[in-house]
Amino acid sequence: MAFELHPRLAADTISLGCSPLCEVRLMNDRTWPWVLLVPRRPDIREIHELSEGDQQQLVRESSALGRSMMEIFAGDKLNVAALGNMVPQLHLHHIVRHEGDLAWPGPVWGVQPAVPYTDEELAGVRRRLEPALRMLGVN
Amino acid sequence: MAFELHPRLAADTISLGCSPLCEVRLMNDRTWPWVLLVPRRPDIREIHELSEGDQQQLVRESSALGRSMMEIFAGDKLNVAALGNMVPQLHLHHIVRHEGDLAWPGPVWGVQPAVPYTDEELAGVRRRLEPALRMLGVN
Repeated sequence: MAFELHPRLAADTISLGCSPLCEVRLMNDRTWPWVLLVPRRPDIREIHELSEGDQQQLVRESSALGRSMMEIFAGDKLNVAALGNMVPQLHLHHIVRHEGDLAWPGPVWGVQPAVPYTDEELAGVRRRLEPALRMLGVN
Repeated sequence: MAFELHPRLAADTISLGCSPLCEVRLMNDRTWPWVLLVPRRPDIREIHELSEGDQQQLVRESSALGRSMMEIFAGDKLNVAALGNMVPQLHLHHIVRHEGDLAWPGPVWGVQPAVPYTDEELAGVRRRLEPALRMLGVN
């Protein structure tokens, strides 16, 4: 069966484009800069289920994305995580943290309901992320 | 300056040995099967600060560890994360989750204080983890 983005990810995130391996998705929550990488491979729940080549491509893309996001948003710390307890399709979170942010120093999951971007905010964050997407090889 | 394990990691975790890249540490919390990989490289806070070769070795070791842990503990889901908001030395968490476990479906961080292993439990979990450590190249 071909890869299809999990409906929950489709509902909660916004497409930023496609890297060589992944769907690149913005979490629709303005509270933190938050981008997900979803490898376009069917039936993958865990990083270790990917081929070795895909695992290496994932870390390559994750590092390019994470490095760029930290520069763009002047972050204090990056959080990178594959959890998937509720949505079992493999998705790698990249969240820029600032000391004193809403969840600091704890993790962001479950702290409060997502606060969606307005159209104007979304256009702005897309623009800000452009260098990151270029580094990631998104067309 | 040479690599030195962060004092907080030294205090909260138990040594399981050394893989080619990492210190392999058991979180001293019997609530979940929980192992950390800490790359033996000084002054690294983020995965993307590692060399490309080290990033690829990290994902190789992480996948070997995670796959083994899921088999040993018959897990429903693996959580893999580099957070580091409180302890900035790069450490990659690997936690085996079961549906209905104490924090399910949320993440484990901050749910309750760590419950240390008894000596007997520790000996038992070390034995259970032996196949994982072998896959990881721990001597």
